[in-house]
This record gives sequence, structure tokens and C-alpha cells, in this order.
Amino acid sequence: MSLLNAYSYEVALQWTGRRAGHATAADFPVLEISAPPEFSGEPGKWTPEHLLVASVASCLMTTFLAIASLSRFDVIAYRSNAVARLEKVPGEGYRFTEIVLTPVIAVQPADREKAEKALRQAEKHCFISNSLRTTVQVEPQFLVAALEPTR
Amino acid sequence: MSLLNAYSYEVALQWTGRRAGHATAADFPVLEISAPPEFSGEPGKWTPEHLLVASVASCLMTTFLAIASLSRFDVIAYRSNAVARLEKVPGEGYRFTEIVLTPVIAVQPADREKAEKALRQAEKHCFISNSLRTTVQVEPQFLVAALEPTR
Repeated sequence: MSLLNAYSYEVALQWTGRRAGHATAADFPVLEISAPPEFSGEPGKWTPEHLLVASVASCLMTTFLAIASLSRFDVIAYRSNAVARLEKVPGEGYRFTEIVLTPVIAVQPADREKAEKALRQAEKHCFISNSLRTTVQVEPQFLVAALEPTR
Repeated sequence: MSLLNAYSYEVALQWTGRRAGHATAADFPVLEISAPPEFSGEPGKWTPEHLLVASVASCLMTTFLAIASLSRFDVIAYRSNAVARLEKVPGEGYRFTEIVLTPVIAVQPADREKAEKALRQAEKHCFISNSLRTTVQVEPQFLVAALEPTR
């Protein structure tokens, strides 16, 4: 729903037993969720913790892709690891203190500078990391590779 | 990975073309992710925005279930809607300003007070909302229902 510079996102959650449930939203596939095993959950299901990490990493990627498109350069490849550290903070309890994103981005040699600039902009404009108290570190690696000519 | 009151959560993200990719973690099912349609993404896939909402809602649920277990009362049913508001904040750009969770929780009549207390504790201890700058409102509804006797 769009409304004058504001959007809303809705999810429905249903408990299915033990420490697990499923989330539904729009016309997306059903997402099975559980607490992680170290907090008495079931293995093999996405956890609230991993969903947060996936959210931050994918926000950086989609924001970068949007800026790349506006900046008119081609992205050849993009993959990223993301690791979040959850720790007990004195007086506060557990919270995520740091998320480290390590994107590996391939572009053509001539686009490297544009890509670096686009990533810095994406980092600044990512909606999810802007909503976090957690420090989000972005440690990119840029690969330059000539695109194969179209045959 | 556990390490003296600290845990880490890792996700790998792979761009698959356009504004979409997939996320993998541990032995979880592959999660297809795209930007939402209003930001040039493809419909039908989980978005960074929806993943954040699912993360917050499922964290409250799993934390509540853990506290219910410690408090020795039975949860009969738990479902929750969750809505997040993304808006342009002057001088900051877009960020999530509010997430409203509306859990509907069924317990036996004698457990209502315990359940209310457990939810307040879950709200306080949720790792995800403790990591957000966003205001998280919890507006619960408690249903009391006698469990069918075991036959």
C-alpha cells in the first residue's frame, strides 16, 4: 500500500506447535519458522535471527541493483555472505550488536568506480539497516571481468 | 555457534537476475527474495521488508512460547498479524518507524494472568525488537477456552 512517501508491509503468523509456526504474506510461499536449536527450536527451519540477517543482506543487494540501474552500469554477478552477532549486553539482555556483510560484486573494468560509489550509496539508503540499532559493516570485494560478447 | 553468551547467524545471498536472488542458511529451504513491486521488484517473492516483519513477529512468538514453557502453562493457540510502516523521515530517508504486532493468544481461563505476564516479558526480551530503532507496539488479545478433556 502506497500513501504519500509511506508504505506498509503485513505478515500473518500462525503457531503450528512446539516452537514453530508459519508466516504468510501477500502471494508469497508459506515460510516455516522456528526458534534456533540453541533456543529450543527445531532444526531445518528459518529462524527470526536468520530472517533478520537475510533481510539486511537482501536490502543492500536490491538497493545496490536499483542504484546500478539508475547509474546505467551492468552488474555481472553479486553474491554476499552476512553474519550477525547476537550477544548479551549488560543491562539490556540479548541483542544484535553487529552485522557484517561481505558482498562480492563483479562488474566490467570500466564500471568499477561507479559500482563502488553505488555500493556506498546503497549502504547509506538501505531501509533495513537504517531501522536498526545494530552496527552494519559492509566489506565489499569488487571483481572486474569483461563481459562475453553477445553472439 | 555458541561462544560465552554470544551467538552468530550466517546467511548466504546469491543474485539470480533482475531485482531478485535467493538466500540460503544452514539446512533451511532456499528462500527466494525480491524487492517489493513498488521498488521495481517481482511479485510473489518474500521481500527484505516482509522478512523484517516476519522476523519481529516470530521472535515475539517464540520468546512467548519459551516463557510459557518455563512458566508451566499451556498455550492453546497463537496467531498474530504484524504490520510495519516504512516512511520517509526528513533528513534520514526511508526507515521503518513503527511495527504493530497483534497477537491473538488462547489459553485456559486459569492461565490468563500468567499468559499476560509472559507476553509482557517476551516483549521486553525479544532479541529482534531490542535490535531495532523502530517502535514496536504489541496489542494482544487473549482468548480463554477450556481445553477438551483427554479421552
